[in-house]
Amino acid sequence: MAYRAPVTDYQYILDHVVDFPLLSDTERFGDATSETSLAIISEAGRLCEEVLAPLQREGDLHPAHLENGVVRTSPGFAEGYAAVAEGGWVGISAPEEYGGMGLPLAITSVVNDMMSSACLALQLNPLMTQGQIEALEHHASDEIKRVYLPRLISGEWSGTMNLTEPQAGSDVGALRSRAVDNGDGSFAITGQKIFISWGDNDFTGNVCHLVLARLPGAPEGTRGIGLFMVPKRIPDAEGQPGAANSLRVVSLEHKMGLHGSPTAVMEFDGATGWMIGEPNKGMAAMFTMMNNARLGVGLQGIGVAEGAYQHALAHALERRQGRTPLGDGAGPIADHADVRRMLMQMKAEVFGARAIALGCAVSADMARATGKPEWRDRAAFLTPIAKAFGTDIGVEVSQMGIQVHGGMGYIEETGASQYLRDVRVTAIYEGTNGIQAMDLVGRKLADGGEAATRLLDDIEACAEGARADMPELAEPIWQAAENLREACDWLVAREDLNDRFAGATSFLRAFARVLGACAHLRAAMAEKAQGEAGPRRALARFYVDRLLPEAASLCVQATRGAGDLYGLSHEELAG
Amino acid sequence: MAYRAPVTDYQYILDHVVDFPLLSDTERFGDATSETSLAIISEAGRLCEEVLAPLQREGDLHPAHLENGVVRTSPGFAEGYAAVAEGGWVGISAPEEYGGMGLPLAITSVVNDMMSSACLALQLNPLMTQGQIEALEHHASDEIKRVYLPRLISGEWSGTMNLTEPQAGSDVGALRSRAVDNGDGSFAITGQKIFISWGDNDFTGNVCHLVLARLPGAPEGTRGIGLFMVPKRIPDAEGQPGAANSLRVVSLEHKMGLHGSPTAVMEFDGATGWMIGEPNKGMAAMFTMMNNARLGVGLQGIGVAEGAYQHALAHALERRQGRTPLGDGAGPIADHADVRRMLMQMKAEVFGARAIALGCAVSADMARATGKPEWRDRAAFLTPIAKAFGTDIGVEVSQMGIQVHGGMGYIEETGASQYLRDVRVTAIYEGTNGIQAMDLVGRKLADGGEAATRLLDDIEACAEGARADMPELAEPIWQAAENLREACDWLVAREDLNDRFAGATSFLRAFARVLGACAHLRAAMAEKAQGEAGPRRALARFYVDRLLPEAASLCVQATRGAGDLYGLSHEELAG
Repeated sequence: MAYRAPVTDYQYILDHVVDFPLLSDTERFGDATSETSLAIISEAGRLCEEVLAPLQREGDLHPAHLENGVVRTSPGFAEGYAAVAEGGWVGISAPEEYGGMGLPLAITSVVNDMMSSACLALQLNPLMTQGQIEALEHHASDEIKRVYLPRLISGEWSGTMNLTEPQAGSDVGALRSRAVDNGDGSFAITGQKIFISWGDNDFTGNVCHLVLARLPGAPEGTRGIGLFMVPKRIPDAEGQPGAANSLRVVSLEHKMGLHGSPTAVMEFDGATGWMIGEPNKGMAAMFTMMNNARLGVGLQGIGVAEGAYQHALAHALERRQGRTPLGDGAGPIADHADVRRMLMQMKAEVFGARAIALGCAVSADMARATGKPEWRDRAAFLTPIAKAFGTDIGVEVSQMGIQVHGGMGYIEETGASQYLRDVRVTAIYEGTNGIQAMDLVGRKLADGGEAATRLLDDIEACAEGARADMPELAEPIWQAAENLREACDWLVAREDLNDRFAGATSFLRAFARVLGACAHLRAAMAEKAQGEAGPRRALARFYVDRLLPEAASLCVQATRGAGDLYGLSHEELAG
Repeated sequence: MAYRAPVTDYQYILDHVVDFPLLSDTERFGDATSETSLAIISEAGRLCEEVLAPLQREGDLHPAHLENGVVRTSPGFAEGYAAVAEGGWVGISAPEEYGGMGLPLAITSVVNDMMSSACLALQLNPLMTQGQIEALEHHASDEIKRVYLPRLISGEWSGTMNLTEPQAGSDVGALRSRAVDNGDGSFAITGQKIFISWGDNDFTGNVCHLVLARLPGAPEGTRGIGLFMVPKRIPDAEGQPGAANSLRVVSLEHKMGLHGSPTAVMEFDGATGWMIGEPNKGMAAMFTMMNNARLGVGLQGIGVAEGAYQHALAHALERRQGRTPLGDGAGPIADHADVRRMLMQMKAEVFGARAIALGCAVSADMARATGKPEWRDRAAFLTPIAKAFGTDIGVEVSQMGIQVHGGMGYIEETGASQYLRDVRVTAIYEGTNGIQAMDLVGRKLADGGEAATRLLDDIEACAEGARADMPELAEPIWQAAENLREACDWLVAREDLNDRFAGATSFLRAFARVLGACAHLRAAMAEKAQGEAGPRRALARFYVDRLLPEAASLCVQATRGAGDLYGLSHEELAG
């Protein structure tokens, strides 16, 4: 049941569905041709198939654990990580001057997607480091950059994000960790942080914690928070890991899944740290990197969905039960209508969600390469959709993977349940999917719906262009885009933000449905243009026939307002 | 975070939503008054709250395991089981002449629902026994009944179902276990059975296996199967457990959840068994009891959903994060719109699914009490809906329970994930939910849609009756019923059964949506008639506003036919 990297699909999406080819016309990404990306994706694919995929089950069976205060990682993870680092896969999009490859985020995204299919628990480690690299690149002093960036980019050191505290989860502004100026350019950081992914390990030379903490006398809420680099071992004059810092892993969580990734409670006890960016502007610094981290988590969901799909498909082609409509005698269960429906849905969902996420990555790349605000706004708009929809699809496709397996799906040895148990957290961390939806209808519609409208214009233009060739796809997509436009206008017109929040989750999913349908249409049109046979059109047809219809009811749900949510009191909810 | 039995809700559904009051007008169930049921439900509720609920986490942490061939159950399970047996809860609906209470299945259903909330792993044991009691009651010889029924009904012995073999899952007809006539009225049973829930335990005096096996020279497929009683210990002349039979537990499965329930691979090696019913008619005997077993599994899903809802609600009322629309300062997360949406959905789904299941139980009771085929057909029609929708809701509500908890939901100590891990199998066993849907559009529409039409007539009549008082509910429900009627007609008219199967899952869910909405409407109308304040109407409003709209797109999906499912070849699915 070996994982096979879907290299062709990635390349097809890049070349024909999202605007990746635009990148090679820019100065910044002139090298990012289709040939380059194919070579890189193929190489990463081999690593995923041969080195990482065999680690997935190991991580589940032999969780990372704490031994006398030291984190011991799952068997093989150190070697797997070394292969990732040596291949240069941590720093694909990192600046070349510090040793990165300077390639588009779109390529990093494909690689992260693949690595998530192969071994999510391990992949989370470089994903955290990538976020840290980005934060340092934009906000750190040259001195910090000089010491940390090359080592993070090479994978010699790894990075973590320390935001959450017991009383401060979705409400980061409620955090209480303190930072006191030591008067020598450093700060003393004190506080407890929870849910720290890869809070420690036994295979990188240092673990670099980015910690949010409050300066004395700082304003309350998110405006009084600073960001600090707090390394496990303090670098000496040559930048080598020196004295141990005053921090420790208190405990590791016992989680539903993702056992190979140590989730730590961290204690900082006057630990030495250096401020990144301005005092009290730590949240802003956090937010620059958060967008890409959110996209990265969306891709985790999509990657796991791909893994679960391949795993279920292999079973469904192998397992024979009962006579199917396609033949006599016991046929493969894949040929039974209801199983086939699940397989088609799994495949179609992965494609759609992946196209959304890679489209988001290309928009971020174009924003960076051209400085044009339209691309920046598009990336910002697509980010919560890519995160929430990608991870929802991760959960849903993994659920279907279990169902396709029947009774075997419930048995741990089969491996189907691990996909669900592992991916479940992606809908929660890096901002729950509810928070993503609120971001979409709140901040991302604060432009009066301009970014949304431009996206809808593009979708309708795409549908118009396909109307003659593929009316069975173009017509319903155009109609769904119109519905969505109305829902969008309705939300924008709400004065009470809570009326938007009440429809947020439905609106996000409706948008994803329409974007997914449009991605399938683009693929089908490209296939036709190349004169190929029609599997992409057939998959698009399935998506439009079976999944797009949901968008209509989602738009209804999105525009109900908050009134009906509060019809029961707390007591009546419990009664 | 203690479980509280929702006694009032059960009673409200029985009295005002389903036709339970009709039962006390029948001769058979004349004693089943509202007062009787309330007393019984209240007593069972206390047992669930005080004795069973504390066992739930124990079962998860300390799985049943095999020790030198002997099953050792989780701590406290023996005592918990004893309390269930002593209370007479196994035999609520069993015949009085053998020690049962002879009460309606509707009451058993409520009790099973509650016990599933409290401790699903343990509840599965008496559920299996109840199925066996029913099979014996209808098909066993008087001799078998005399020996087994009193002991099964008292809970002294427990029962299992042995259907599945490695090559025979959904296709039961492919089984290979053999039964050879011993010439003395007994048979020698040989074969391996898998996925045997509660295949053994260390707290009942005997474990009675009902085993499907094939007689020499029997026809192939389901027509050549016999049903056999194969006890772990062969009863002696006094009916006491005597010599050990030639059967053993080979191993227990390592499952995603439900760890407290031992799922066994059973080996029968010429074990002594007695035929139940006619030769080669074992499947028919199995099917009589399967309907109620399916309903029982649906109630497992609903019970777990209730538990997950209560657990999440307690957290959402306790946990404070950020300013909510209802107050200043950090408020309970239950007051944030998106969390409130989830809580309302959880509550509304549980109510709707429960009403469907209890409506099914009452129909089965009325069929039994009156012998009228309309009731029998209604029960048969509702059974796959109750099973599949109830268990889907179990999974979905448990998922939301995790999401409401945020990061804490992913930590095992919180307990939220156990609901999902435990309930996940209910969508698979006793016929996967896909099989249920095929049953609905296949066998249950084989009457030309008569049973469906009668149900839709009732729903529309209910909507008509509410039009003046509650047009905001009545109108959309009437319209949804009309849509469903069209979908139903479309399915019935298909010549190729596979076109029905292709829409089966969507059709089942659409029907459940409309039934659920109608149940909420009935509750709201009853509330109004009693002049009470409007929480039931508010919940109904939420259901109609937010959940019922799905029915429209489900009907679209249900009527697509099979064509678009087979647009990709096996290779293209993998490509």
